Amino acid sequence: MFRMIGFIVLLLSLFPLQSFAAEETAAISEQTRGCLGCHRSVTPGIVSDWEHSRHARNTPGEAMGRPELERRVSAMRVPDMLTDKVVGCYECHSRNLEKHTDSFQHFGFRINVVVSPSDCATCHPDEEKQYSNTKKAYAIKNLKGNPVYQSLVQAVIGLKTVHGIGIETAAPSDFTRQETCFACHGTIVEVAGMKIIDSDFGPVEVPALTNWPNQGVGRINPDGTRGACTACHPRHAFSIEVARKPYTCAQCHLEPDVPAWNVYKESKHGNIFESSYHGWDFNAVPWKLGEHFQAPTCAVCHNSLLVKPDGSVIAERTHDFGERLWVRLFALPYTHSQPKDGDTTKIRNDEGLPLPTTFTGEPATEYLIGQDEQQKRKKIMKAVCRGCHGTDWVEMHFAKLDNTIKETDSMTLAATRLMVEAWDGGLADKSNPFDEALEHKWVKQWLFFGNTARYASAMTGAPDYAAFKYGWWGLSTNLELMRDKIELKKKLKEAEGH
Amino acid sequence: MFRMIGFIVLLLSLFPLQSFAAEETAAISEQTRGCLGCHRSVTPGIVSDWEHSRHARNTPGEAMGRPELERRVSAMRVPDMLTDKVVGCYECHSRNLEKHTDSFQHFGFRINVVVSPSDCATCHPDEEKQYSNTKKAYAIKNLKGNPVYQSLVQAVIGLKTVHGIGIETAAPSDFTRQETCFACHGTIVEVAGMKIIDSDFGPVEVPALTNWPNQGVGRINPDGTRGACTACHPRHAFSIEVARKPYTCAQCHLEPDVPAWNVYKESKHGNIFESSYHGWDFNAVPWKLGEHFQAPTCAVCHNSLLVKPDGSVIAERTHDFGERLWVRLFALPYTHSQPKDGDTTKIRNDEGLPLPTTFTGEPATEYLIGQDEQQKRKKIMKAVCRGCHGTDWVEMHFAKLDNTIKETDSMTLAATRLMVEAWDGGLADKSNPFDEALEHKWVKQWLFFGNTARYASAMTGAPDYAAFKYGWWGLSTNLELMRDKIELKKKLKEAEGH
Amino acid sequence: MFRMIGFIVLLLSLFPLQSFAAEETAAISEQTRGCLGCHRSVTPGIVSDWEHSRHARNTPGEAMGRPELERRVSAMRVPDMLTDKVVGCYECHSRNLEKHTDSFQHFGFRINVVVSPSDCATCHPDEEKQYSNTKKAYAIKNLKGNPVYQSLVQAVIGLKTVHGIGIETAAPSDFTRQETCFACHGTIVEVAGMKIIDSDFGPVEVPALTNWPNQGVGRINPDGTRGACTACHPRHAFSIEVARKPYTCAQCHLEPDVPAWNVYKESKHGNIFESSYHGWDFNAVPWKLGEHFQAPTCAVCHNSLLVKPDGSVIAERTHDFGERLWVRLFALPYTHSQPKDGDTTKIRNDEGLPLPTTFTGEPATEYLIGQDEQQKRKKIMKAVCRGCHGTDWVEMHFAKLDNTIKETDSMTLAATRLMVEAWDGGLADKSNPFDEALEHKWVKQWLFFGNTARYASAMTGAPDYAAFKYGWWGLSTNLELMRDKIELKKKLKEAEGH
Repeated sequence: MFRMIGFIVLLLSLFPLQSFAAEETAAISEQTRGCLGCHRSVTPGIVSDWEHSRHARNTPGEAMGRPELERRVSAMRVPDMLTDKVVGCYECHSRNLEKHTDSFQHFGFRINVVVSPSDCATCHPDEEKQYSNTKKAYAIKNLKGNPVYQSLVQAVIGLKTVHGIGIETAAPSDFTRQETCFACHGTIVEVAGMKIIDSDFGPVEVPALTNWPNQGVGRINPDGTRGACTACHPRHAFSIEVARKPYTCAQCHLEPDVPAWNVYKESKHGNIFESSYHGWDFNAVPWKLGEHFQAPTCAVCHNSLLVKPDGSVIAERTHDFGERLWVRLFALPYTHSQPKDGDTTKIRNDEGLPLPTTFTGEPATEYLIGQDEQQKRKKIMKAVCRGCHGTDWVEMHFAKLDNTIKETDSMTLAATRLMVEAWDGGLADKSNPFDEALEHKWVKQWLFFGNTARYASAMTGAPDYAAFKYGWWGLSTNLELMRDKIELKKKLKEAEGH
Repeated sequence: MFRMIGFIVLLLSLFPLQSFAAEETAAISEQTRGCLGCHRSVTPGIVSDWEHSRHARNTPGEAMGRPELERRVSAMRVPDMLTDKVVGCYECHSRNLEKHTDSFQHFGFRINVVVSPSDCATCHPDEEKQYSNTKKAYAIKNLKGNPVYQSLVQAVIGLKTVHGIGIETAAPSDFTRQETCFACHGTIVEVAGMKIIDSDFGPVEVPALTNWPNQGVGRINPDGTRGACTACHPRHAFSIEVARKPYTCAQCHLEPDVPAWNVYKESKHGNIFESSYHGWDFNAVPWKLGEHFQAPTCAVCHNSLLVKPDGSVIAERTHDFGERLWVRLFALPYTHSQPKDGDTTKIRNDEGLPLPTTFTGEPATEYLIGQDEQQKRKKIMKAVCRGCHGTDWVEMHFAKLDNTIKETDSMTLAATRLMVEAWDGGLADKSNPFDEALEHKWVKQWLFFGNTARYASAMTGAPDYAAFKYGWWGLSTNLELMRDKIELKKKLKEAEGH
Repeated sequence: MFRMIGFIVLLLSLFPLQSFAAEETAAISEQTRGCLGCHRSVTPGIVSDWEHSRHARNTPGEAMGRPELERRVSAMRVPDMLTDKVVGCYECHSRNLEKHTDSFQHFGFRINVVVSPSDCATCHPDEEKQYSNTKKAYAIKNLKGNPVYQSLVQAVIGLKTVHGIGIETAAPSDFTRQETCFACHGTIVEVAGMKIIDSDFGPVEVPALTNWPNQGVGRINPDGTRGACTACHPRHAFSIEVARKPYTCAQCHLEPDVPAWNVYKESKHGNIFESSYHGWDFNAVPWKLGEHFQAPTCAVCHNSLLVKPDGSVIAERTHDFGERLWVRLFALPYTHSQPKDGDTTKIRNDEGLPLPTTFTGEPATEYLIGQDEQQKRKKIMKAVCRGCHGTDWVEMHFAKLDNTIKETDSMTLAATRLMVEAWDGGLADKSNPFDEALEHKWVKQWLFFGNTARYASAMTGAPDYAAFKYGWWGLSTNLELMRDKIELKKKLKEAEGH
């Protein structure tokens, strides 16, 4: 068998492909040929990545000519100079030069360092529009602009020093922010002048970018736009296959706080994916349920254009990754309906804090979607499930999820009651509610254990994970640990009082 | 290379396949065609899953005609109406109607919702028989019917509420049981009347099933049978490939309590599997060692029919997944010989508890297999190892495992001694031995850390896992934590006494 | 599509391959045919593994005739008897008989049980030479010969017994050493006489090897050599593909102490690897960036011969896996420049301990490489990065890593300050600095949490891992736990004083 495969490969390697190559070359713009001239030897990896891509083999003109369901571009018209050329270096890096503070002269061409969502919108305007007002697009503002979250950030990544047995915490460094929170959330990339770098061809002047490199979902680009398409369509391959595979989402959606990938892997869906995906077609547009894939991945449920084998649409494509979601399982510190607006810094709960719920679970209703919108979204998601499952099966799944949400929120409330006991009794200091050992346990209750049990439920099952690893075992044992710690602190305080 | 693959696919897509399709259609029963008529559009995923399956392309008649070692069915004869039709919707969902409380009229056909092991036994009787008295088949009874285990279940998944700093625990909800313990162990699926659901074709009346959906290994079905073949042969593909890949076992056999998959992945066997499996043949029957695969997966060691390239049998197929096992590494709370009977609720240890060992390690010998049976089973397992390893290598591996069993049981005894000190000294309350912070640590000693070190040893090595992650690091640091906690409780008690 | 693949396979299976097989047989030596005669039925897995290997299809003569960059052997000349025969059982197991204490008579042949790096050096001398003075080659001496590390080993894997609430620790058993530390580090394999084993052909006399089986990187072999090539080129396939896939490195480089694989998986590089690697060529020599792979794996950055598509060399092949490394992220207990010598038992820090840094972070400079050597190595690594990334991107990545090293070392210093407070205050006993509950937390600070944050930084990002899982969350919460524990111990001591 192994030998035979070798034989096919040998056979095929003899097949003449020159004609293909020639045609392709014809469609590469003069400018892009210029780029390739040097970069093929300077950064061959990028060039090769691009050469393997769809961008290198298709022109926008061809792409726009496809039947509607098969279209991978949403533009109806693109600038003339782009229509009949494949999408090369220059085509992307020279968009909207006037808006880009990072545009600069580079060996005779004016180009931008960073390609932004606005640039991609030249051919993919619907995707950019869908994305632009999502929580993902506002990921950095929502984190940086929220003082409550900043208290948590400070507690986790602020540099600590010890004096005696006292611990002092400094503000987190930019570099550490970039390697932790901001790597997923995005950084603010600005131009801080020009600088000289050493290249293979000698010194080259380039814009000095702040907080760079970064490919976080909410990156603020030098043209003022929000987002980085490369977060999911990495680097110069811009691949739909890669974006549709769960490894992409798994860059950020991970245990212990957002264990989507971890619980998916352990589910039956994940098992079927891992056992079978090499025979599936992750490149097909539209994506036919049953024909192109036999079990859902992240993209199936959350954003791809799905059709039945007869071509009828199950769910429309969306780049608003919350569009099919009604509830937010990611507790802050309780679950809540999805926010109405991607910019969540506007939210104020009944305690006046920029959080979607109070510490005792009251939702900031005014800022969250209502019942009708929730039902609408649930319906889309159920339609996806029903591609493979009977109605009763689907309804019972959602009933289980509803119960898990209720019970895990109760477990958070239980932990909060203990915490309030400690705060009110002077056993912990609420000024930063996230920075003491007891408070860390409280944070784990909703951020790690509660989220885990809920994600496991929503993603159709990771039972051992939900039972023993970060789920219910955590929720229950953590309460006992908190109780013991509070009791001890009380006793010691009393003893000191005597 | 990428382009060439595209080229082959193109070439093949032009190849006429109509004749194949026509033949297949001829063998589909009238009734199944009726099912497909609607379900191809209502639940296309299921239909497609089935169309890709072996069931859709083979008739029992053909399957029974294969040479003995190549047979995938164990029946010698099946009902005439089944012999020459492929195994479609109706063929499975209409078996043994009289025994199924979930049978109902559905668009002119009387069918069952749940296909049970008894139904599969129409063609696969040996597999059903092998399975029927295993621990897996009794998984739900063994958990639900054992009051000791129920104390643990209560401690882990019972909903907690806090009053002052007191914690109250309610009985776990059915839904949470289904999403944790029962998802692997199985639920009791019964018919609680009929109900109307909304389908794409309007309201439809279906049986209202309790604790549904579920695909746990010990599921009690509406026909009274035990087990769910879909636990390992998922959904409508019934795939031997999927069942043989370790991702299937990894749905339930996971860290921190049964980390079989986790330690396998880190072993050399796991490395070879992950690096090479895409070139292996997971569909071949019989499964030829060396030819079809080059390193063991779960199924290789535990249940598949294995032969040498010359066709001689190394190990017979079994669907009793304990058949090749002599010792039970999963400690309760110590390791022990495998139970004689799949129904472990009958066991009574010397303390009168339904556990295979006492809290100090005495085995309930009467209920466990003896030396002879152990040797017999060990011999089968060693024969599998010896397919690739010399005798000495194999013997030394088993010697190491024996030692690890002994040492980890000692580490559990050490933790138990500390726990007894606490129970006897009034520092912990034994009424539920699993629900206090100190008791949680004791549980971790045998359920998480001890199991981990043993599984790592048995699965031929996950050294870093056994050393630092959940293994020996856990076993040793946990003892110190327990000791410190007991010492502290003692001191506080003494201080209060003054 | 699935059916079509079936069809191709069918088509190919009819293709006559006898001629290939015949040619191969001709090049198999008389002696190896003898081995195969029995072992094909006794251990068919090994034979099949070998038959799939490059060794079974190539002679050293052919291999030496390849153009220089394509050579997989570094020998210029091999013994005549080997030149024109494929590399079979006898060719490897009969090397350097006189040096092997494990050589013995086996059915008419004198052979060695263990094939050592010196034996492989017959054809691969450069690789053996590069490897022979590395930290990996000295892995067992460096662990076994360092009393500080032995204190940690004792604390972690020494068998504990409990008396009252006192814990006693015995020396770790040989078996447990083999299943934990020594499985990666290697064992000392010696011949302790001969013994009789039961084989399929009756009793056979073989050397009785100590600490066997083992494939650790620093194994001491019965011929006195250091290392086991099978650690990375497993068993009888000797595969370059397997060695180049990260699953091989992932056998040992794992969370929580050396989480290289864990953070790689979560990085963008890991995502691209996991999403795309089935289309890459892991067998090509030299390895062309962009053409054969599109994202780095462990081997790309750390040891493979890399060329650009134009054939120019980016980095030379090396089997000294530290050759491209300047800093050692694995803290002992702080990061430090790479040691000059693979034998690290010679190192003495300012406190006289065999550690590369003192407990407060002073490096043992004399034993570590200097600035020039560091710059030289950094330059090679950067050249690899620059295959796909611009200079600025690369420089900023390394600046982030430098900062992370500095900050995480500070976090270790903070924990050490607390520990010193405890040691000096009589709240902990420094005689073994690793065996008490408080000391375990200190160990976690540098061994688990610090290493994690650094590996995540170096491997270009695993942000959630670095933030919440074993990284900064651990670094920060652990300090609070240590502080609380010390404070409590102080209070109790004071209370006792009264």
